[in-house]
Amino acid sequence: MAVNIRRFTDYLPIAGVRLGVAQSNMRYPERDDMVIIELAEGSQCAGVFTRNAFCAAPVSVCRQHLQHSTPRYLLINTGNANAGTGEQGWQDALQSCQQLAEAGQCAMEQVLPFSTGVIGEPLNMTAFERGIPAALQDLSDDHWDRAAAGIMTTDTVPKGYSQQLVIAGETVTITGLSKGAGMIKPDMATMLGFIATDASIDAVLLQRWCGQLADSSFNRITIDGDTSTNDCCMLIASGRGGLHIDRDDSPGADALFAALKQAFQVLAQAIVRDGEGATKFVTLQVNGAAQPQEALDVAYTVAHSPLVKTAMYASDANWGRILAAVGRAGIDDLQVDQVNIFLNDVQIVENGGRCASYQEEHGAAVLAQAEFLVRIELGRGDCSDTLWTSDLSHEYVSINADYRS
Amino acid sequence: MAVNIRRFTDYLPIAGVRLGVAQSNMRYPERDDMVIIELAEGSQCAGVFTRNAFCAAPVSVCRQHLQHSTPRYLLINTGNANAGTGEQGWQDALQSCQQLAEAGQCAMEQVLPFSTGVIGEPLNMTAFERGIPAALQDLSDDHWDRAAAGIMTTDTVPKGYSQQLVIAGETVTITGLSKGAGMIKPDMATMLGFIATDASIDAVLLQRWCGQLADSSFNRITIDGDTSTNDCCMLIASGRGGLHIDRDDSPGADALFAALKQAFQVLAQAIVRDGEGATKFVTLQVNGAAQPQEALDVAYTVAHSPLVKTAMYASDANWGRILAAVGRAGIDDLQVDQVNIFLNDVQIVENGGRCASYQEEHGAAVLAQAEFLVRIELGRGDCSDTLWTSDLSHEYVSINADYRS
Repeated sequence: MAVNIRRFTDYLPIAGVRLGVAQSNMRYPERDDMVIIELAEGSQCAGVFTRNAFCAAPVSVCRQHLQHSTPRYLLINTGNANAGTGEQGWQDALQSCQQLAEAGQCAMEQVLPFSTGVIGEPLNMTAFERGIPAALQDLSDDHWDRAAAGIMTTDTVPKGYSQQLVIAGETVTITGLSKGAGMIKPDMATMLGFIATDASIDAVLLQRWCGQLADSSFNRITIDGDTSTNDCCMLIASGRGGLHIDRDDSPGADALFAALKQAFQVLAQAIVRDGEGATKFVTLQVNGAAQPQEALDVAYTVAHSPLVKTAMYASDANWGRILAAVGRAGIDDLQVDQVNIFLNDVQIVENGGRCASYQEEHGAAVLAQAEFLVRIELGRGDCSDTLWTSDLSHEYVSINADYRS
Repeated sequence: MAVNIRRFTDYLPIAGVRLGVAQSNMRYPERDDMVIIELAEGSQCAGVFTRNAFCAAPVSVCRQHLQHSTPRYLLINTGNANAGTGEQGWQDALQSCQQLAEAGQCAMEQVLPFSTGVIGEPLNMTAFERGIPAALQDLSDDHWDRAAAGIMTTDTVPKGYSQQLVIAGETVTITGLSKGAGMIKPDMATMLGFIATDASIDAVLLQRWCGQLADSSFNRITIDGDTSTNDCCMLIASGRGGLHIDRDDSPGADALFAALKQAFQVLAQAIVRDGEGATKFVTLQVNGAAQPQEALDVAYTVAHSPLVKTAMYASDANWGRILAAVGRAGIDDLQVDQVNIFLNDVQIVENGGRCASYQEEHGAAVLAQAEFLVRIELGRGDCSDTLWTSDLSHEYVSINADYRS
């Protein structure tokens, strides 16, 4: 199942960025499962990574390489996450970088490795011997679509985004990919995002922006609350276009940031739309919080409530479940009679109780739609937050319970 | 579904405690749905209540009455939670107390009200007119079994416990009831526990013990992580037996506390065994934590992970999912290579990776059982915690999504 998402195909190339795809036989034969993204000399690259303490070996290597060099290649394999693999996993990740560095004539530290797939099994190193030369051979600035398909695990749809706009008189292109659908079927993991622009962005600024952009997109989605060991999101600035951004107040910086934010959010939301067993795409907005963290805590508590999620699956406007989730979100001095809750424009809770004008069929009509907004007003202050989530369906249980048995 | 639980019938009466059951037609006709527990003069009663900010009107009334008087009656109705009902709900709860106080000839503050059932609908007050006289008429020290059935909502089994033992040369009896199966089907809520002993216990000590006992039992179970608006747990000491406990170091205090702890834990675990859609009863033990809270955080993160819960449902010893949940439990300086995980005696994770000796069929054999232990060793210190949870099945989704639609 997937909610209002179709394969994106209108990719615009990014000058300075080429992509190559290959069949490496990492785990399954005859599928595109290895992707190389080549960055031209002078490109900048920033990243944010999983906060899971059990982060996979390629994530640790990636972090370290990013600190000590300017990347030339991103090497992505699907089928094996190289997670929970200890010292051997670390050595294997380094060796895959070494192989690409030799073939691509750069330093090993200029290669960033990304793995997604089964946890706890050793990497198939012969797959790199086969896949790296083939993917290098395949490099083209026109292969975004095949790359989006080549990094999928149990995604049902390749996920992409592309936009061209004029900022401060310069034409700027933004193109990106993402993958992920939860922590996915038994032993499968990882959300990945790769977003590139031909603008030139100062390296320190790029890293800060990457964090801020991920916080408003990939860090604001939840399907099942389970953080993978392999999550990575990379922002690439090839610098081949005419726009140069050195500081937050450079001409065009605001517009570029806004355009990148849209790219990040569309790609993040695509993961929710393709979420495991998802039949609903839900925007959860919390307003009137006293602190930013408070808004986020309430939003996550509601988004992770199995009772709220099953009610959404059933198109059941069960305001008691939403209310109970708000009530246990950890706000000690919550004034319950200040709380108002809306489904789109239908008010279901007024001053902490059932809204007098509310009729069940109005709530049910909103929830029968594939996409809707749940808006929670806390009446405590000016802080807000928004996140995106999916429902909890029979299909979710089937995907996660039945597959291996 | 329910895991290794059958109707308990061997109740021993508690001198000074009588129970009456009636059909009040609160929501459904012709079912026992109103219970009165009468406490003889001189009984002490302590309670712990939901921490949900949207606590129901009867919970607020109960808390207040408990502070200002010595209870003579507990009045419990099922079918309607009187939650999310605002000022009217508060007045209705008071009025139900007033009705019982008049009929039972005590002060209104000596009645404690408890409600469980639908959220957001006004109480059916004529049900009390019918139910209170009938339940008073029915009072007997032998009606624990019917009372256990009379407080059920969607529980599949009435839940009880009874034990007699000799402490410090005195015969002591402990008998209790509980109900709950999650936040239960659409709009139904509440876990309730009532435990009585004929020992005499100092009132201040009783309240402290009640909190400590609930923390090691009802506050250590989780089915779906959703806290109800109506949760209450009451500890009653009728004082009609020969054992008198004034202080923690009174003769027999340790033995009585231990016996009460067993009663609390059996009744709490009964709720998990009867959990919505439960097919597995899982004990989650976290050892080697640096702080008590850390052990609890890890245990809850694992217990609430939909991926871990669906894997248990599938009898799939998916150690990667458990590992990933431990990794996102918020321990910043977790040394992943110190982590070991066991299913009963089968080690699945050794030093943060797959245990070398582990074979998948051994893990699957453990998880194929209806009850098993997941033991997580963090290797950071001496703190431990244990909680009990159930799996996430198709039946859970059906109960929570399909019922109202």
